[in-house]
Amino acid sequence: MDEVEARRRFATSTVARLATVDASGRPTLVPICFALEGEVIYSAVDDKPKTTTQLARLANVHVRPDVAVLADHYGEDWTALWWVRARGLGRELDDEAERQRAIELLRAKYPQYAQHALDGPVLAIDVSAWRGWSATPPA
Amino acid sequence: MDEVEARRRFATSTVARLATVDASGRPTLVPICFALEGEVIYSAVDDKPKTTTQLARLANVHVRPDVAVLADHYGEDWTALWWVRARGLGRELDDEAERQRAIELLRAKYPQYAQHALDGPVLAIDVSAWRGWSATPPA
Repeated sequence: MDEVEARRRFATSTVARLATVDASGRPTLVPICFALEGEVIYSAVDDKPKTTTQLARLANVHVRPDVAVLADHYGEDWTALWWVRARGLGRELDDEAERQRAIELLRAKYPQYAQHALDGPVLAIDVSAWRGWSATPPA
Repeated sequence: MDEVEARRRFATSTVARLATVDASGRPTLVPICFALEGEVIYSAVDDKPKTTTQLARLANVHVRPDVAVLADHYGEDWTALWWVRARGLGRELDDEAERQRAIELLRAKYPQYAQHALDGPVLAIDVSAWRGWSATPPA
């Protein structure tokens, strides 16, 4: 799967999993909702309720900005399996204009966010590489 | 969610995502099929076709055995969201009896493996901690 197709499948996914590394070098991961604009993935720390887990991912990114994000399709038909992985650098948004834009994108993608204030931190990931795999080559 | 419930939900999931860390300290992740027995997660490197990605996860585990594995439920109803994360140490199976047992467990869980030789490496993860989160507390 080429980078264009990989990015397209990632963009239209509703959930992804974010892997970060803590200060001691151990990986952790959480599911995220996200919006993609250009080569930036945005994800709000909005949880439901907020937990220390939410803060852990931000703490990790501050110490070790290298992250990976995975979107995939799983189902009983293994000929339809695929996954796409983004690699990049994470940063917590401190620019208010970019933060507002990120929240706008997230609200546009997820009607569920109508019930959420989205007043917490927003994580941005500047993607440096897309990689995709599919069991069946794209047509 | 307590550890017993977390482990139960993980065990009955059909797909999970594995995060490992490479020699330079960067995280990576891939979806995995797996079987759980006791506190050991087994996953076969069987892919379809085999790729360098498959070998990367083993190389990572040899250098940095700390891994994390996530199973989750995502859907439009955000009150039903949950995830479970296992932390542990990864190792490539070199004991033939354990390898055969792992393959037996995988074949029992996934009828799709009837079409696969499962003659490649098997990754084991000795779980040291389960952690779960759910949007709605389990009844």
